[in-house]
Amino acid sequence: MTVVEVRIELKKGVADPEGENTRKALELLGFDVKKVNSIKVFDIDVGEKDSASAVEEVKEMCKKLLANPVIHKYSVEVKRD
Amino acid sequence: MTVVEVRIELKKGVADPEGENTRKALELLGFDVKKVNSIKVFDIDVGEKDSASAVEEVKEMCKKLLANPVIHKYSVEVKRD
Repeated sequence: MTVVEVRIELKKGVADPEGENTRKALELLGFDVKKVNSIKVFDIDVGEKDSASAVEEVKEMCKKLLANPVIHKYSVEVKRD
Repeated sequence: MTVVEVRIELKKGVADPEGENTRKALELLGFDVKKVNSIKVFDIDVGEKDSASAVEEVKEMCKKLLANPVIHKYSVEVKRD
Protein backbone atom coordinates (compact mmCIF):
# COMPACT_ATOMS: atom_id res chain seq x y z
CA MET A 1 0.00 0.00 0.00
CA THR A 2 1.59 3.23 -1.14
CA VAL A 3 0.03 6.41 0.16
CA VAL A 4 1.02 9.65 -1.53
CA GLU A 5 0.30 13.04 -0.02
CA VAL A 6 -0.50 15.90 -2.38
CA ARG A 7 -0.42 19.41 -1.00
CA ILE A 8 -2.24 21.95 -3.15
CA GLU A 9 -1.78 25.60 -2.27
CA LEU A 10 -2.45 28.89 -3.95
CA LYS A 11 0.35 30.56 -5.86
CA LYS A 12 1.84 33.68 -4.39
CA GLY A 13 -0.27 36.72 -5.26
CA VAL A 14 -3.51 34.76 -5.71
CA ALA A 15 -6.27 35.91 -3.35
CA ASP A 16 -7.13 33.43 -0.59
CA PRO A 17 -10.64 34.40 0.57
CA GLU A 18 -10.99 31.29 2.74
CA GLY A 19 -7.78 32.09 4.59
CA GLU A 20 -8.64 35.76 4.90
CA ASN A 21 -12.11 35.04 6.26
CA THR A 22 -10.66 32.54 8.71
CA ARG A 23 -8.24 35.22 9.87
CA LYS A 24 -11.10 37.70 10.37
CA ALA A 25 -13.15 35.16 12.30
CA LEU A 26 -10.18 34.35 14.56
CA GLU A 27 -9.66 38.07 15.14
CA LEU A 28 -13.30 38.47 16.14
CA LEU A 29 -12.72 35.72 18.70
CA GLY A 30 -9.89 37.76 20.19
CA PHE A 31 -6.86 36.08 18.61
CA ASP A 32 -4.04 38.18 17.20
CA VAL A 33 -3.41 36.61 13.79
CA LYS A 34 -1.32 38.20 11.03
CA LYS A 35 -2.18 35.88 8.16
CA VAL A 36 -3.89 32.58 7.41
CA ASN A 37 -3.18 30.47 4.32
CA SER A 38 -5.62 27.75 3.43
CA ILE A 39 -4.18 24.61 1.88
CA LYS A 40 -5.82 21.47 0.56
CA VAL A 41 -4.21 18.09 1.13
CA PHE A 42 -5.19 14.73 -0.30
CA ASP A 43 -3.79 11.44 0.95
CA ILE A 44 -4.09 9.10 -2.01
CA ASP A 45 -3.72 5.35 -1.65
CA VAL A 46 -2.54 4.09 -5.04
CA GLY A 47 -2.23 0.44 -4.00
CA GLU A 48 0.92 -1.59 -4.50
CA LYS A 49 3.29 0.57 -6.50
CA ASP A 50 6.91 1.60 -6.17
CA SER A 51 7.47 5.13 -4.91
CA ALA A 52 8.75 6.63 -8.15
CA SER A 53 5.84 5.50 -10.31
CA ALA A 54 3.34 6.40 -7.55
CA VAL A 55 4.69 9.97 -7.50
CA GLU A 56 4.53 10.19 -11.29
CA GLU A 57 0.95 8.93 -11.31
CA VAL A 58 -0.17 11.39 -8.64
CA LYS A 59 1.50 14.29 -10.48
CA GLU A 60 -0.55 13.26 -13.50
CA MET A 61 -3.70 13.33 -11.29
CA CYS A 62 -2.82 16.88 -10.24
CA LYS A 63 -2.48 17.96 -13.86
CA LYS A 64 -5.70 16.31 -14.95
CA LEU A 65 -7.99 16.97 -11.99
CA LEU A 66 -6.73 18.06 -8.59
CA ALA A 67 -4.93 21.32 -9.24
CA ASN A 68 -5.62 24.34 -11.41
CA PRO A 69 -2.26 25.42 -12.87
CA VAL A 70 -3.42 29.02 -13.20
CA ILE A 71 -3.78 29.50 -9.45
CA HIS A 72 -2.33 26.44 -7.70
CA LYS A 73 1.07 25.00 -7.01
CA TYR A 74 1.36 21.50 -5.68
CA SER A 75 3.87 19.21 -4.07
CA VAL A 76 3.78 15.43 -3.97
CA GLU A 77 5.39 13.26 -1.33
CA VAL A 78 5.29 9.53 -0.57
CA LYS A 79 3.93 9.14 2.92
CA ARG A 80 3.90 5.41 3.45
CA ASP A 81 5.22 2.49 1.44
CA MET B 1 7.25 35.69 12.62
CA THR B 2 5.99 32.34 13.88
CA VAL B 3 3.97 30.28 11.43
CA VAL B 4 2.05 27.34 12.82
CA GLU B 5 0.59 24.64 10.62
CA VAL B 6 -2.70 23.07 11.68
CA ARG B 7 -3.76 19.86 9.98
CA ILE B 8 -7.43 19.06 10.38
CA GLU B 9 -8.56 15.62 9.30
CA LEU B 10 -11.64 13.50 9.79
CA LYS B 11 -11.65 10.97 12.59
CA LYS B 12 -11.52 7.32 11.64
CA GLY B 13 -14.97 6.05 10.73
CA VAL B 14 -16.36 9.45 9.73
CA ALA B 15 -17.56 9.55 6.12
CA ASP B 16 -15.38 11.61 3.78
CA PRO B 17 -17.61 12.44 0.80
CA GLU B 18 -15.08 14.87 -0.68
CA GLY B 19 -12.37 12.22 -0.65
CA GLU B 20 -14.71 9.55 -1.98
CA ASN B 21 -15.93 11.74 -4.83
CA THR B 22 -12.36 12.66 -5.69
CA ARG B 23 -11.53 8.95 -5.81
CA LYS B 24 -14.47 8.30 -8.15
CA ALA B 25 -13.48 11.18 -10.43
CA LEU B 26 -9.90 9.91 -10.61
CA GLU B 27 -11.20 6.45 -11.43
CA LEU B 28 -13.31 7.85 -14.26
CA LEU B 29 -10.11 9.42 -15.61
CA GLY B 30 -8.52 5.98 -15.71
CA PHE B 31 -6.44 6.05 -12.52
CA ASP B 32 -6.42 3.07 -10.19
CA VAL B 33 -6.98 4.61 -6.75
CA LYS B 34 -7.88 2.65 -3.61
CA LYS B 35 -8.75 5.51 -1.29
CA VAL B 36 -8.54 9.29 -1.03
CA ASN B 37 -8.59 11.19 2.27
CA SER B 38 -9.26 14.91 2.16
CA ILE B 39 -7.48 17.03 4.73
CA LYS B 40 -7.60 20.72 5.48
CA VAL B 41 -4.47 22.61 6.43
CA PHE B 42 -4.12 26.17 7.66
CA ASP B 43 -0.80 27.97 7.92
CA ILE B 44 -1.33 30.56 10.62
CA ASP B 45 1.06 33.44 11.14
CA VAL B 46 0.72 34.45 14.79
CA GLY B 47 3.41 37.14 14.68
CA GLU B 48 6.31 37.29 17.11
CA LYS B 49 5.69 34.57 19.68
CA ASP B 50 7.74 31.76 21.14
CA SER B 51 6.93 28.31 19.79
CA ALA B 52 5.29 26.91 22.92
CA SER B 53 2.79 29.73 23.36
CA ALA B 54 2.11 29.83 19.60
CA VAL B 55 1.18 26.14 19.67
CA GLU B 56 -1.05 26.67 22.71
CA GLU B 57 -2.80 29.60 21.04
CA VAL B 58 -3.42 27.69 17.81
CA LYS B 59 -4.80 24.70 19.75
CA GLU B 60 -7.23 27.14 21.34
CA MET B 61 -8.21 28.37 17.83
CA CYS B 62 -8.92 24.77 16.83
CA LYS B 63 -11.16 24.29 19.84
CA LYS B 64 -13.04 27.55 19.33
CA LEU B 65 -13.34 27.69 15.55
CA LEU B 66 -11.28 25.57 13.19
CA ALA B 67 -12.13 22.00 14.15
CA ASN B 68 -15.32 20.21 15.09
CA PRO B 69 -14.41 17.80 17.91
CA VAL B 70 -17.24 15.44 16.97
CA ILE B 71 -15.74 14.61 13.58
CA HIS B 72 -12.25 16.12 13.39
CA LYS B 73 -8.85 15.41 14.85
CA TYR B 74 -6.12 17.98 14.47
CA SER B 75 -2.40 18.29 14.84
CA VAL B 76 -0.44 21.49 15.34
CA GLU B 77 3.18 22.02 14.36
CA VAL B 78 5.46 25.05 14.30
CA LYS B 79 6.61 25.52 10.73
CA ARG B 80 8.82 28.57 10.93
CA ASP B 81 10.16 30.66 13.78
